[in-house]
Amino acid sequence: MGKEKAVVLLSGGLDSATALAIAIQSGFKILPLTIDYGQKHIWEIESSKNLIRHFKISSHKVFKLDLSSIGGSALTDDIEVPKNRNNEEISEGIPITYVPARNTIFLSIALGYAEVKNANHIFIGVNAIDYSGYPDCRPEFIQSFETTANLATKMGVEGFRKIKIHTPLIDMEKSSIIKTGIELGVDYSITHSCYDPKSDGKPCKECDACILRLKGFEEAGLKDPLI
Amino acid sequence: MGKEKAVVLLSGGLDSATALAIAIQSGFKILPLTIDYGQKHIWEIESSKNLIRHFKISSHKVFKLDLSSIGGSALTDDIEVPKNRNNEEISEGIPITYVPARNTIFLSIALGYAEVKNANHIFIGVNAIDYSGYPDCRPEFIQSFETTANLATKMGVEGFRKIKIHTPLIDMEKSSIIKTGIELGVDYSITHSCYDPKSDGKPCKECDACILRLKGFEEAGLKDPLI
Repeated sequence: MGKEKAVVLLSGGLDSATALAIAIQSGFKILPLTIDYGQKHIWEIESSKNLIRHFKISSHKVFKLDLSSIGGSALTDDIEVPKNRNNEEISEGIPITYVPARNTIFLSIALGYAEVKNANHIFIGVNAIDYSGYPDCRPEFIQSFETTANLATKMGVEGFRKIKIHTPLIDMEKSSIIKTGIELGVDYSITHSCYDPKSDGKPCKECDACILRLKGFEEAGLKDPLI
Repeated sequence: MGKEKAVVLLSGGLDSATALAIAIQSGFKILPLTIDYGQKHIWEIESSKNLIRHFKISSHKVFKLDLSSIGGSALTDDIEVPKNRNNEEISEGIPITYVPARNTIFLSIALGYAEVKNANHIFIGVNAIDYSGYPDCRPEFIQSFETTANLATKMGVEGFRKIKIHTPLIDMEKSSIIKTGIELGVDYSITHSCYDPKSDGKPCKECDACILRLKGFEEAGLKDPLI
């Protein structure tokens, strides 16, 4: 029997890059899946391609999905991404950058891809600590999706292998994610986190994603190679 | 307060046309959603547009999604749709026309659309009796998806309204679906069921979908207007 296969959702951001490194370290044969969902930060797609090269992975599925056609988020629509110019506490509640049902949609596509490829592992770099504002980053959502996935598919129904959703970062602080990634060889200079990058792809340093990333590097006692 | 809103997944087939009629009858404001998923039977999209006109609904979202790029089904790939030329019992097990994780993906997109539109009802015309071979047509799958949906979204988390997945056809025989639809004004001459239509869109009369449809009309004591 060869290696077990894992579909890894890869956005090109800091978190998914680390989840990828953990999946590699765990010994899976990696099937990276990037969803090109009409996000304004298209630099994510470039970053994900660079990560694939960095880790010398041979295949990379980029799946196109125009979420902007259903709208409802500052990440896909013409709504301004909120800036946090005074470095205030990140606000409570669900932010405007939340994309309706994004992780449900992404995990569903990953599930379809996993089933076609006979993979029963899916990795997603969700993190419940820094993003508690996104309902679909919480462990109870992930557990429920896993149950649904096993009812939805051939693999689950025929019962020969159960589908497992892996969320290695779910309980980690941003600084430990960064330290873990560095140990596992992630080159964070080719990752991308900003919600609203400048025209040359450089981070704005003012959106929630930039601020969380900067804070993470600071707390890890490291310098963000992007800055 | 106006009417409650319902997203209705509409494929243009006999089942979803009937589910649409039931949703209208139930008094919802209808938001029809058709997924153009790269299916070979593109006539479905035309049928869904004709149904929208027939029921005088003002909006219709057609969401493009290239499932053929992940492959794995006779409905999207270059795999021959199986024909049942001797009118045998439809075989046991999961058929090759099963699209991996299709209903999970479709319901996820419907969920995103529902959330954007502030709708907390979703209708899907799945039927567990005739298609027991598809794992994602079973009631236990639908119930689990509903639980996941309520954990995944703003609406569910904030708890002000629960998301409800309606499957009015799930326990119905094909013949009762047809009788119900006719009572509710469905014009079955503009629906489309064949998995492998001829170049002019006419049904092949030999695939599982055609055979189930023919049998349904026969048992209802009616003539299929498509034949």
